[in-house]
Amino acid sequence: MPTELAILLYDRFTALDAIGPYEVLSRVPDTNVTFVAKTPGTVRTDTTRAGVVADRALDDLPAPDGVLVPGGPGQEAVMEDPEVLDWLRSAHEHTRWTTSVCTGSLVLAAAGLVEGRRATCHWLALERLSDFGAKPVAERVVVDGKLRTAAGVSAGIDMGLTLAAELADEPTAQAIQLGLEYDPQPPWDVGAPSKAPAAVVEFLRKASRHL
Amino acid sequence: MPTELAILLYDRFTALDAIGPYEVLSRVPDTNVTFVAKTPGTVRTDTTRAGVVADRALDDLPAPDGVLVPGGPGQEAVMEDPEVLDWLRSAHEHTRWTTSVCTGSLVLAAAGLVEGRRATCHWLALERLSDFGAKPVAERVVVDGKLRTAAGVSAGIDMGLTLAAELADEPTAQAIQLGLEYDPQPPWDVGAPSKAPAAVVEFLRKASRHL
Repeated sequence: MPTELAILLYDRFTALDAIGPYEVLSRVPDTNVTFVAKTPGTVRTDTTRAGVVADRALDDLPAPDGVLVPGGPGQEAVMEDPEVLDWLRSAHEHTRWTTSVCTGSLVLAAAGLVEGRRATCHWLALERLSDFGAKPVAERVVVDGKLRTAAGVSAGIDMGLTLAAELADEPTAQAIQLGLEYDPQPPWDVGAPSKAPAAVVEFLRKASRHL
Repeated sequence: MPTELAILLYDRFTALDAIGPYEVLSRVPDTNVTFVAKTPGTVRTDTTRAGVVADRALDDLPAPDGVLVPGGPGQEAVMEDPEVLDWLRSAHEHTRWTTSVCTGSLVLAAAGLVEGRRATCHWLALERLSDFGAKPVAERVVVDGKLRTAAGVSAGIDMGLTLAAELADEPTAQAIQLGLEYDPQPPWDVGAPSKAPAAVVEFLRKASRHL
């Protein structure tokens, strides 16, 4: 039986949060990645400029081997959606991996799945994990038991590779990394608040207050 | 008037090739990113496990300010599709940026847009650019006039950031990078053939011969 991984989509999710890990995990042998949502069909992203298709309803995958919850501004509504939270809680009882990218960890938190656990989140929302009894950790990928939480947006690629090595083995995960030519060369070294110019950090802090 | 950027989708494209740059460029102020295809609607990716929606037909955006062609095994068919190639040639006459990720540069090449130009591609297909009179360059992002070509899959994120600085300015592009928490920490340093174990490189070379 192949390993079944479900990636949750919801209105106003952030595309790369989901597609980064998908791109890695869908290349692991004997692994099926399936996009799921409350209602199958097109789900629009936070920018409204993209649509990704959820091929299955939540009820179609009640007990996947792994779940991944992406982040995005739409997560606020999902955090109050009993149908999604119930599905997550129920799935989590059987998963081998329960994972999130970015503010997706707040959805796991709202479902009660990170209480007392080490977890991470987008740097702008990291402290909110404390509201749910989790221990916020400012690391790129945080592992606690079967929980895997990744930091903001692009961190899902790094988490995906780590998980690929668990699903298969290191050479397979490395072949996927090389296949995706994941040899990142960002034009600047400003991808974390500790590294970015203070004005850029402040700009984002102010902008996030409007969300 | 906002800057209009068209990302071409086609059957069996690689999702991250398109979504990486989308995630960056859709956050540039006064910039519209639109997914286009011969026929609007859902376009399936190379793994078949994901669908991304093309919101517009090619004819809806005959003269965008920029085009981006992702790679993926479906590019072989696109390289022989006169409708797509004609659209690219016609658009290229007016673009400020004509760009590709991964083997998308082979599509630009098939349209005759890289002859005599420096360009890059996925490392496994780089030398094929020579067949079209281009000068293959093993760099992450290659700029030649208004051409921007990126290496395999994940390189589109790096290209997107460079382009964002041109579209807006460096602080804006850096804010996008920090917003996406693009502070990559791959678990291994094996993302380029010069860095990966020989056995991993050979495995991919063999696998690619079956494509």
